[in-house]
Amino acid sequence: MSASVREQAVAAKAASRVLATLPETQRNEVLEAVAATLESARDGLLSANAQDLDVARTMREAGELTAAALDRLTLDERKLNEMAAQVRSVAALPDPLGRTLDAVELDDRDPAGWGQPGAAAGLHLRKISVPLGVLGVIFEARPDAVTQIAALALKSGNAVILKAGKEVEHTAAALVTLLRDTLAVAGLPEAAVALLGGREQVAELLDAHGLVDLIIPRGSKALVDYVQANTRIPVLGHAEGVCHIYVDRAADQDLALRVIEDAKTEYPAACNAVETVLVHREVAAAFLPKLAERLRARGVALHGNDSLQGLLPDGAAANDADFHTEYGGPELSLAVVDSLDAAIDHIHTFCSSHTESILTEDAAAAERFLREVDAAGVFHNASTRFADGFRYGFGAEVGVSTSKFHARGPVGLEGLTTYKYILRGRGHVAGDYRGTADAPAARTFTHRRAGR
Amino acid sequence: MSASVREQAVAAKAASRVLATLPETQRNEVLEAVAATLESARDGLLSANAQDLDVARTMREAGELTAAALDRLTLDERKLNEMAAQVRSVAALPDPLGRTLDAVELDDRDPAGWGQPGAAAGLHLRKISVPLGVLGVIFEARPDAVTQIAALALKSGNAVILKAGKEVEHTAAALVTLLRDTLAVAGLPEAAVALLGGREQVAELLDAHGLVDLIIPRGSKALVDYVQANTRIPVLGHAEGVCHIYVDRAADQDLALRVIEDAKTEYPAACNAVETVLVHREVAAAFLPKLAERLRARGVALHGNDSLQGLLPDGAAANDADFHTEYGGPELSLAVVDSLDAAIDHIHTFCSSHTESILTEDAAAAERFLREVDAAGVFHNASTRFADGFRYGFGAEVGVSTSKFHARGPVGLEGLTTYKYILRGRGHVAGDYRGTADAPAARTFTHRRAGR
Repeated sequence: MSASVREQAVAAKAASRVLATLPETQRNEVLEAVAATLESARDGLLSANAQDLDVARTMREAGELTAAALDRLTLDERKLNEMAAQVRSVAALPDPLGRTLDAVELDDRDPAGWGQPGAAAGLHLRKISVPLGVLGVIFEARPDAVTQIAALALKSGNAVILKAGKEVEHTAAALVTLLRDTLAVAGLPEAAVALLGGREQVAELLDAHGLVDLIIPRGSKALVDYVQANTRIPVLGHAEGVCHIYVDRAADQDLALRVIEDAKTEYPAACNAVETVLVHREVAAAFLPKLAERLRARGVALHGNDSLQGLLPDGAAANDADFHTEYGGPELSLAVVDSLDAAIDHIHTFCSSHTESILTEDAAAAERFLREVDAAGVFHNASTRFADGFRYGFGAEVGVSTSKFHARGPVGLEGLTTYKYILRGRGHVAGDYRGTADAPAARTFTHRRAGR
Repeated sequence: MSASVREQAVAAKAASRVLATLPETQRNEVLEAVAATLESARDGLLSANAQDLDVARTMREAGELTAAALDRLTLDERKLNEMAAQVRSVAALPDPLGRTLDAVELDDRDPAGWGQPGAAAGLHLRKISVPLGVLGVIFEARPDAVTQIAALALKSGNAVILKAGKEVEHTAAALVTLLRDTLAVAGLPEAAVALLGGREQVAELLDAHGLVDLIIPRGSKALVDYVQANTRIPVLGHAEGVCHIYVDRAADQDLALRVIEDAKTEYPAACNAVETVLVHREVAAAFLPKLAERLRARGVALHGNDSLQGLLPDGAAANDADFHTEYGGPELSLAVVDSLDAAIDHIHTFCSSHTESILTEDAAAAERFLREVDAAGVFHNASTRFADGFRYGFGAEVGVSTSKFHARGPVGLEGLTTYKYILRGRGHVAGDYRGTADAPAARTFTHRRAGR
């Protein structure tokens, strides 16, 4: 990997043009071959992983790595089999390419005499899904991310330039070599999958505007912020998830306790965990003590503001809520609001436009919330934790977007595609459809839509 | 208009939340009222326009304004009626909001006992189209653009901050006042339409990240480049259109002459006019002299490179083609290529990913071109001039995008929308769908797709 990032990006762009033209069967065959090689090339992968583990164990002993992180970067036979199964499951997903997104007949006749309409005649527009081109993905120190991201890229006809966490560098290099060798055996350009070296190459990647079509930063808010501030390439990702649950005055309180417990404690580090619960004043006195008891039993620390005054047993919620904070752990902000409008205002002031949920048995209140709240996900009587590509039924999740552009919310394979318009004519020219003051146009557009 | 840009953007964001919740009928009623007022408030608008014309005529006499520009900014009764008709035609377009883009049943039962499936039971996801929020549009000096852009924004539930060309400032101010008064009469926030003053306010607009959701620069390449380089807000537009036509060895040459003449001369200033024609070497000797004759008769200057050597009568094409240039006038670059592959390579090297066309009777060559060329529009036997929202049947054109993100190619009302996911449950929590080593999950997702 001595090539510069720019050289790799140029090669990846050329490779992407080849991938874009492959039929689905051929893309799937490559993925099947990758899966088979993951199972058969086990020894080489495990010995590369052993090199990373030597360093990682030392870091663990020095307290520089958590036990969970060490576990995540450890490969074994079971994990390699899981990785192979994951690649096969990506192969089994529906083809995201070549889908007809729109079709319009502009005219049903040909300019040669404007004869009769016929099956082969006319001017026909089709909007079809195509790959983006080259993806740049910066991700955490876990070997399975390498094969999963590469599989999603290849399935969607995209080349990919990977930058893995340093702790997994030997393993990632061995996996990328496996991927490139498999591509070469299939007669495809191995430049379709590339791996960057040191962290300094990230800046070069972010500078490859015009060659790299999308950057996906997976990781900390600091990483996402850095990437967004330092590139003109579109970025798919989200810096944070400050999700809210609003307990309406007409909420079923048992339902609310269950949903909030799930949303806060099922996996507190996730971006779709709840960070703030807003409670309508009319039910605050009855509901808040029950909520505090339920959450304290699960080890959740509560933060409040002035609005809680006198509503909770002393000390259950300190007057220190920071409604901008994504706690990422067993902590929760609480506030009492006077109305549905006040709840919506609070959410619009502090939310990251990720996922917001209302708990109520009042259908009208629910509809207002769903309509008025501006976020990627708006939920009624459901946990914010459902905001996830797998749970949404997308089969795979590329990331979660809190941007309103290109893709919003959990993003599946579709997020790695764009579209192009294909127009098929028989010598049609625009001038024939433009009239003048003296002469009417030779033809008018038929503009019949074939449905989406 | 003494408010700062930021204050206007904050007010526009608040107004956009109101617009987003309006039913289609109410949005259309406002547009009908705007159209009626354009017809009835004629005198005030004409006298505002007279102030602009005083200055403009002086500029015209000093040679600082073209006759066409002066004509574009002149209002009269006929033009006001056309503007009203245009606003009514926007009202008549299909509603871009509230469309169901996807629907997935995540579960068909409720957590209260996981009883029987039923019409009202279960966990249901819907992806629906919603407005972007606040648009910032910088546009040329023409009064009709004010009402057309405002109509497109209001139809799609967006607030809009306008910056008009200086030459039309009094007219634009009168039109924006009319729009705001009409909104106020309808009980809607007049901040939904705002007008910026001087050019220095553009920089403040570009800085309103988080308040303004999309910037649409209409105008010169210099303007688009400036906007793209100076904002973190997504930009819808294109800096240039360097469109190609490739005349294959199997082209119908009469068809090719007709299509190229149309693509170059029908409206040379348009971004979808052709700038470069590539000709396969096998037909170059026969075709190029005919093409040169046809285009010279229409006053088109031809530019060539070494590849043309000996193929054209002396002087018909100078050896000075700049394949990066969008001529924007009656000029055309020519080159001879050895193959379809060479044509595609040339296009990928120089094209702006706008619109590329192949002229051929060879179906296989056409399919390869349509599949392999990476551009917003890829055409077969049709003029590049068809790349246009009206011609595509979108009803309205917001702009043309050469980005692969959010919207590509001609962009209709849909380009002013994004989507959100609405999840309706009955107390569903994610933990019920997660098994452990010891216990299976209480439920598995059904993930039934209702079709798009």
